[in-house]
This record gives sequence, C-alpha cells and structure tokens, in this order.
Amino acid sequence: MKLASFSTQQHQSFGVVRNGSVFDLRKRLDGQYVDLKALISANAFAEAQRVTSEGEGDYPLAEVTLEPVISNPQQIFCVGLNYAEHVKETNRETTENPVIFMRLPASQVGAGQPMLRPPESMQFDYEGEIAVIIGRGGRRIAEADAWNHIAGYSCYNDGSIRDWQRHTGQWGPGKNFFRTGAFGPWMVTSDEIEPNAVMTLVTRLNGVEVQRATTEMLIHGIAKQIAYLSTFTPLFPGDVIVTGTPGGVGAKRNPPLFMKAGDVAEVEVDRIGTLSNPIADEA
Amino acid sequence: MKLASFSTQQHQSFGVVRNGSVFDLRKRLDGQYVDLKALISANAFAEAQRVTSEGEGDYPLAEVTLEPVISNPQQIFCVGLNYAEHVKETNRETTENPVIFMRLPASQVGAGQPMLRPPESMQFDYEGEIAVIIGRGGRRIAEADAWNHIAGYSCYNDGSIRDWQRHTGQWGPGKNFFRTGAFGPWMVTSDEIEPNAVMTLVTRLNGVEVQRATTEMLIHGIAKQIAYLSTFTPLFPGDVIVTGTPGGVGAKRNPPLFMKAGDVAEVEVDRIGTLSNPIADEA
Repeated sequence: MKLASFSTQQHQSFGVVRNGSVFDLRKRLDGQYVDLKALISANAFAEAQRVTSEGEGDYPLAEVTLEPVISNPQQIFCVGLNYAEHVKETNRETTENPVIFMRLPASQVGAGQPMLRPPESMQFDYEGEIAVIIGRGGRRIAEADAWNHIAGYSCYNDGSIRDWQRHTGQWGPGKNFFRTGAFGPWMVTSDEIEPNAVMTLVTRLNGVEVQRATTEMLIHGIAKQIAYLSTFTPLFPGDVIVTGTPGGVGAKRNPPLFMKAGDVAEVEVDRIGTLSNPIADEA
Repeated sequence: MKLASFSTQQHQSFGVVRNGSVFDLRKRLDGQYVDLKALISANAFAEAQRVTSEGEGDYPLAEVTLEPVISNPQQIFCVGLNYAEHVKETNRETTENPVIFMRLPASQVGAGQPMLRPPESMQFDYEGEIAVIIGRGGRRIAEADAWNHIAGYSCYNDGSIRDWQRHTGQWGPGKNFFRTGAFGPWMVTSDEIEPNAVMTLVTRLNGVEVQRATTEMLIHGIAKQIAYLSTFTPLFPGDVIVTGTPGGVGAKRNPPLFMKAGDVAEVEVDRIGTLSNPIADEA
C-alpha cells in the first residue's frame, strides 16, 4: 500500500495512492485520524486498506499537492557518512557508531514542490537517500527486532547548504534551511518490502545520474540505525530516519555541481518510486 | 509574570506562579488554550494577567508537578562553545558563527523531576544555561529587532552524556538521552527583563558552585543567536534557544566530576529563579 500526505485547495489530508488516484482517508475514516502520523500511531493500516480496496479514488493524483510523507514528525534523524564512497570523497573516516544529525519539519517539502535555494548561499547540494518511517515506537530496540518497528519506506532528498553546514563543526544550520529538503512522494508500507530487502537508490539532476548505490552498501544498516537511535531516545510512530547518502554529491565534484533555479532533482528507489522536485530561488 | 507548565494527578495544564500558588490558566481561560505554547502563539499574556490578578491560586506550587516550561516545543536549539572559558577548557576555537545543535522534547524534564543517568554511561555531566523562549515567530529577524521576539527567559540544564557526545563529530546522541536535560522552573516574561539585561548564571552540584558567568560574557549574544537561527529557519512561538554554558563542566575537571544517583543539580539565574533536579539512575 502507498500512503501519502497531501493537500487540496479545501483541506489537508492523507490517503492511499493507487492507479493514479488518491483515496482520501481522512474523509473515508470520518476524521478519526487527523493525519498519517495518527493512522500509524493507531496501527490502522488494515482499516485503511479496507475502505480503499474497492471503487474509484477521490481525486486524480495529479490534482493534489503532495506534502512531506509525514508532515509533522516528532523526530527526524539523518545518518551521515554512511556509504564508503561518500566517506572517501569527504576525506573523513568511518566511525564505529553512526553519525547522527537532525532535520526539522520546516526544512522539508513534498514531491513536486520546489526545493528552495536561499539568497544566503550559492552552494545548494542534493543528497539522495532512503527514508524509514517508524511504526511501532520503542526504546532500546534490538537489531533483530528492528524490522517490526518500521511502518514503511520512502525517498528523501537531504538538500544541504554546504557553506552553512561548515560554519562550525555541527552541521545543523546547513541541513535545516527552510524547504531545502524533500520527502516523498509516498511511503510504501513495510508489508510489501521484506526485512533487509536490497533496494537501489539513484539520484538524478536534470535527468543525469549523479548518485547510485544499493542498501547492501550501507555502512551502518537500517536495523543498526534503529537500535542505536533507540538507545538514547524513544522512537515514536511517524519518526523518520534518513539513512545516508552515497558518493557523488555536488560539492565534491570537480568542478562542483550545485543546484540552481530551473533544475530538477530526482531521487528514485526501485521498490518505492521517484521523488522529483524543481529547484527555485527563495522569493 | 511567571508562567509554568505543570501536571496534577487529574490533568496537564499551565498557569501563572505567584506567591507560592499556581493559577490554572487552562481552567480559568475555559480551555481556550491547550498549553503554554498556544497561549504564547495567541499573544494572550494580557488575558492571562487579567484572570490571575486577584484572589487565591488554584493549587499550592508544592503540590503540582512542574513540567518543562514548554512541554512540546516545535524546535529546541542549543548554542555550544559560547563562553570563552568553556571554549578554552574544551581545547576548541571560537567560531565566527554560533555552534548550533538541537535537543528533542523527550530529552527534557521539568524542575524537581529526576534527570536520568542511563545505564549506557557513567559520564553524565551538567551544563547550566539561560533559555530564551520565542514569542512572536519570524524569519531573518534583525538583531535590533530580536528582543521583540522573546516571550521570556528560563533556566536550563543541558545535561550531556559525554562519551556518547563524542561517538562522532556530531553531538546529537550525547545531548538527547531520554530525560537527561531540565527546563524550568518557569519562564519570566520579557516585560520584566529589559533587552540585553545582565543576568548572572550559577550552577551548583550538591550545593557546591561549579559554574558562574554573566550574559555579558556570551561570545554570541542573544540577539545574534536569534538573527542567526532565523536566517535558516522560521522561528515559531514557543521555540526554545538554550544560550550556552560557561566554563566548569564536569568532564573537563581533574578529576572529572560526573553526576550520579542521589546528587542534586541546580541552575540559578538571578532574574528568574532556581531550577533544581535530583539525579537518578534510569530504571
């Protein structure tokens, strides 16, 4: 099942995407769940399936605005330096534990919405990644049990303002400019993607492939990420883990390749779909 | 006016603290505002003042459980290495821009609640700080205008798990163990503290002074912090900025001084009050 958050001119909602249509779950479930995070918290995927399994959708997919898959996560964790080629191109070293930083909800847009380059920088870079959405929350989750805590998977563009990322040793400011990241187009529920599935991640800028990797190449795999994060903090339903970017980022190319207004960035994950966003200058 | 978030056995609420009593604003304002963040968002301090200016409080202060001043901030920013003595003791260098990292709401407790040392570490350290609570939100706020965006001030103990803070170059995990930080006891509204007021911050462990500084010693002052943060992200009502810790942290003492069960940590700011928390081992 593909689940998305979206808005129409009338309202904010979430629903199932199937055959080019959107089935509005807020409406079909009588407002019982205010958003996708609430549906996940209530473990109500079977109910969602039931009320969308027959008949026509409520809107054509092309007529809604897709929002970040989870519009208001309690916590968004990103894993840095998690593919060997990317570690090498940044002249850093692999660490025994995953490198963790955070994004804020305001830094994200949904599929199709413009990712914004702020006037403060010319160094707006892409980072294609696979996102994990937490289903059942928990603390100190064992690696072997981690897969049972995943609600689904999505695509993520961890858009980064490189000069601000390097202002100090802490990367937060460069990773949290308003609407510089993208999360979507939808999540594919974990019943359709087996534990430890091999997924292929490809990033394209204006149609040209710039990053490619598979989940087999992750230094700290998804189960380990969940175990590590949940050691220090409870994970909550709807939390997002952005699992790391492969080699090939724009800042480390010669010459550097940064995003500018009019570009189109795509992150494709074979089992999920393609997240596509135009780049625009912030007004 | 002193504003606090609290819970009783019956409910979660927020209110005014005066003369050892708590005036329940959720009740007195007929549930119009669900929490202190909502009161701040609505810019409704005058209304709060009006319904609490006369008569008796609703509960003795000693009979409520104080919660983190803002129980669910949208964003919590912390400024690192912002007093010269602390920069020196950590063998780091002052940076042109403030060092920013983030805390998550789950990492906080209110005044009087135990700060928890997790079983994963023996290196639980205190960091006394002054917290700023954002009132009116905004983006790209000029330094000169920053004071108009502050709702109030509080005390913060940016409790840190030092070995986890050093797992990688990014400090997040060591700064976000569950219930390791403290925020309270209340906020003093900014109408009582003039812009650029000199405040004195003192941290005590078991009654012994371990840190002391004034806001005049901040490397990046409060107005600059607001200007810098709001350049990359919108600030929202109820957001929290934890402004930095002075020299004297436990990890840099010889021998090191870490917190353990039975200890009491206090952060006192002269214009605000004292945040006091017992230390306990996480069960």
